[in-house]
Amino acid sequence: MATRIQMRSPLPMPHTPEAPIYQQLAAHYREAIEKNALRLGMRMPSVRELMRRHAVSLSTALQTLRVLEERGWLEARPRVGYFVRNAGTPALEEMSDPDLREPFQAGDGHAGARFTGINERISLLVESGRRADIRVDLGGATPGEELFDTRWMNRSAAALLREQPGILAVGRSTAGTHPEFQAAMAHRALKAGMRLAPQDVMATSGNTEAVHLALAAVAQPGDVVAVESPTYYGLLQGIESLGLKTLEIPCSQHTGISLEALDLAVRTEPRLRAVVVVPDLQMPLGTLMPDGHKAALVKFCAQHGLALVEDDSYRLLVEAAEPPRPIKAWDVSGHVIYCESLNKTLAPGLRQGWMTGGRWHERVQMLKFAQSRNTNTLGQLLAARWTAAPAFERHLLRLRPRLRSQRERMAQAIARYFPAGTRLRLPPGGLSLWIQLPDGVSSSSLFEQALRQGIRIAPGAMFSNTARYDGFLRLSCALAFTDGVDGALRTLGQLAGAGRA
Amino acid sequence: MATRIQMRSPLPMPHTPEAPIYQQLAAHYREAIEKNALRLGMRMPSVRELMRRHAVSLSTALQTLRVLEERGWLEARPRVGYFVRNAGTPALEEMSDPDLREPFQAGDGHAGARFTGINERISLLVESGRRADIRVDLGGATPGEELFDTRWMNRSAAALLREQPGILAVGRSTAGTHPEFQAAMAHRALKAGMRLAPQDVMATSGNTEAVHLALAAVAQPGDVVAVESPTYYGLLQGIESLGLKTLEIPCSQHTGISLEALDLAVRTEPRLRAVVVVPDLQMPLGTLMPDGHKAALVKFCAQHGLALVEDDSYRLLVEAAEPPRPIKAWDVSGHVIYCESLNKTLAPGLRQGWMTGGRWHERVQMLKFAQSRNTNTLGQLLAARWTAAPAFERHLLRLRPRLRSQRERMAQAIARYFPAGTRLRLPPGGLSLWIQLPDGVSSSSLFEQALRQGIRIAPGAMFSNTARYDGFLRLSCALAFTDGVDGALRTLGQLAGAGRA
Repeated sequence: MATRIQMRSPLPMPHTPEAPIYQQLAAHYREAIEKNALRLGMRMPSVRELMRRHAVSLSTALQTLRVLEERGWLEARPRVGYFVRNAGTPALEEMSDPDLREPFQAGDGHAGARFTGINERISLLVESGRRADIRVDLGGATPGEELFDTRWMNRSAAALLREQPGILAVGRSTAGTHPEFQAAMAHRALKAGMRLAPQDVMATSGNTEAVHLALAAVAQPGDVVAVESPTYYGLLQGIESLGLKTLEIPCSQHTGISLEALDLAVRTEPRLRAVVVVPDLQMPLGTLMPDGHKAALVKFCAQHGLALVEDDSYRLLVEAAEPPRPIKAWDVSGHVIYCESLNKTLAPGLRQGWMTGGRWHERVQMLKFAQSRNTNTLGQLLAARWTAAPAFERHLLRLRPRLRSQRERMAQAIARYFPAGTRLRLPPGGLSLWIQLPDGVSSSSLFEQALRQGIRIAPGAMFSNTARYDGFLRLSCALAFTDGVDGALRTLGQLAGAGRA
Repeated sequence: MATRIQMRSPLPMPHTPEAPIYQQLAAHYREAIEKNALRLGMRMPSVRELMRRHAVSLSTALQTLRVLEERGWLEARPRVGYFVRNAGTPALEEMSDPDLREPFQAGDGHAGARFTGINERISLLVESGRRADIRVDLGGATPGEELFDTRWMNRSAAALLREQPGILAVGRSTAGTHPEFQAAMAHRALKAGMRLAPQDVMATSGNTEAVHLALAAVAQPGDVVAVESPTYYGLLQGIESLGLKTLEIPCSQHTGISLEALDLAVRTEPRLRAVVVVPDLQMPLGTLMPDGHKAALVKFCAQHGLALVEDDSYRLLVEAAEPPRPIKAWDVSGHVIYCESLNKTLAPGLRQGWMTGGRWHERVQMLKFAQSRNTNTLGQLLAARWTAAPAFERHLLRLRPRLRSQRERMAQAIARYFPAGTRLRLPPGGLSLWIQLPDGVSSSSLFEQALRQGIRIAPGAMFSNTARYDGFLRLSCALAFTDGVDGALRTLGQLAGAGRA
């Protein structure tokens, strides 16, 4: 059914004068690619140029290119030439989709929504993250400091403090979200195709709080929330903390949450109140929901009176000239509660997010006020200024290819080190890879074993209220691809290989 | 029963040559006091000096001092002399305590806990606070920018950004509270008599979030929470947002929450799970709970398995050489969940708080993680450094007398402008006054009328789930006492006087 990942595989190491010249040349160029001297998407020297540069024959030059292409390092574009392969788009076969016709059954084999009981499992990860002896942390999904222009950020923060010297001293607890932040986010929303007035914008402490408030606003304890399966463990925790039930809806890697299964859910779950989705770079699958599917989902939720909670944390990390439009852009009835986190794109340290609650906005505001008052003003104003600055656009233009390179190098290493039968689908953006281990290998065991070696991963069991994903794991691509990461992946691959036997 | 406030009352305005000389002189010194040329606690010129300075007779000098003393502007200290009266401590009689024997009945006249339904009323205040035409805001209770050393704060923030340039870029979402903040708060806790390890400290977004998490950790929807009556409206909102019931327990102005009524509540409310108190400078009464009462309350809650949630927002604003010890200092069984807000004392703009959950700490941490992840690191580190700096102690030493002066000048103006029958008790610290209007005057009407004049107050109805406090209001003393504030109080007094008729 599912296909073994097809990736660039390692060339035999030549560098010995005995190896044929085309192999030596291919190794030379592979190294150049690995060291980023030849970067993804760049044009490879032509046949003619190879012949001239290295004083080789036509057949040697052709053979060099062919072997690099075969091993996945280059792609041929007819009548244009050879290019360093952007492994992000073509040729990688993906895992198979699950049965999309109905909601997943709970762990006990019975259909229907279940109270979530995941916090203990998650506490494990949280605790392990606090251990001092973690050498390589592949468990999180937050971009590292080196991916941000901290000098610019700090200069700008210092300037704001000079300009508004009272900002740390002024409390605005009853005054609501800062108007400058509201105006800035409404402006960005407009560019993304959403029609919002500034007063529709409410600042939050990231999307964890935003999605929590959205669910608290639309559901009562015992009510049911439909989620993508697999889904971000933080969402399952939030649902558990509110005393709500979870219904896991299968996801296609091509289109996201299954409308067919949702349709069945509406008929079998009278207390279904909300659907939560990460439409762009679904976490952990990395799926981009197509526009048509977005429109259909909005229409479906409006028809059935469901709140559609959109968690937009990764949209700006999509590899594209223009980021996709959020689901909210299709919302005419106010059924979409849109939540944007700036954690992954602008400044993880700020924990700044915002939301607009559609027809539930007033209740969302009331709950925010009752539960935590405003987020601090400094973060709001920095986010307002930074997102409006051309430097933010430039930062994203640098960030995306860096993350792509990190994803691809991770994927290459996985292809190299993990046992046969390992599968993955390289996502079109984002901060992580979702990996299917060969049959019989448990990521929970792998998690435990890896921890002992100072490596942290996110086991698949964290992404569902069931045991369905024990054969999967999520690896962070947020770290620069160092020897340490390479070594950690080699160790993981060995452990997975041993787990199989 | 209750006594009319005894305060410095206005002298008849002389300045006309027809007035007797002692009245002219008294008016002169009253002005000097009002303009702070003669400040609270300062010694008044002696009889001999008055005679010499103003070339008046002994009897005129004595009469001048006597009239100033009678009107409350001076106090005589036998064998020492006359001093500008520090109205904060003596002679102000307080409102009478309510019946402390049993919990208050709900608005419908029936005993027992009730679901809270206060958010609409509060939304009114929140909305009104956003109105652009508020000239004088006496509705909040957050100290103003001018009460803080913003230059020091900003220098320190800039230094932190230079020292840790990645602080805005580094996400610590799964890493928990920053160790530096934990160590700093544990150190402060130790000085205040609490025994905590650094890992017992969890950062929060102020006390609104902290108390919310505490209640979410110990109670399920439908459970009952005992609160002080009157109490801070934010608490009632938080309880409503969690689907909990409120039981209002009467408070003595001398000792705080009634143990007798609590004892009855335990026996009649099987779902009572928690008691929430502001033991130091109770909001809005301003009561300081005596140590013996603190100890007894902790013991009572431990005996009955109740969570005792301590909201410490104002303790450092108590007028005393040494701040009182928090309730948590008496906790040996882990039944006290201690929450400290640094909003009112350190930096309102940061919205930084922290909590320690006693026997519920793990669950509190889990809920925080599920609902909003960590608060941002910058705020934690600034709070850690600022509270450890000698400048913070110096700031508090400046802040307390400034607030005292503001409270006293407000109280003087209220005595001058409000109708007879108005009562208040000047609290031993803090940011606000709780005022009882003459019989028949509604603070809700006053609120509406005042808003039309650009003045915002907090009507008593916001401080209870019942209509019990419609004859009360809270006025903020956080603003410097300007002509604008004086004029606003004159307007409020006139409106209250008219309301009585």
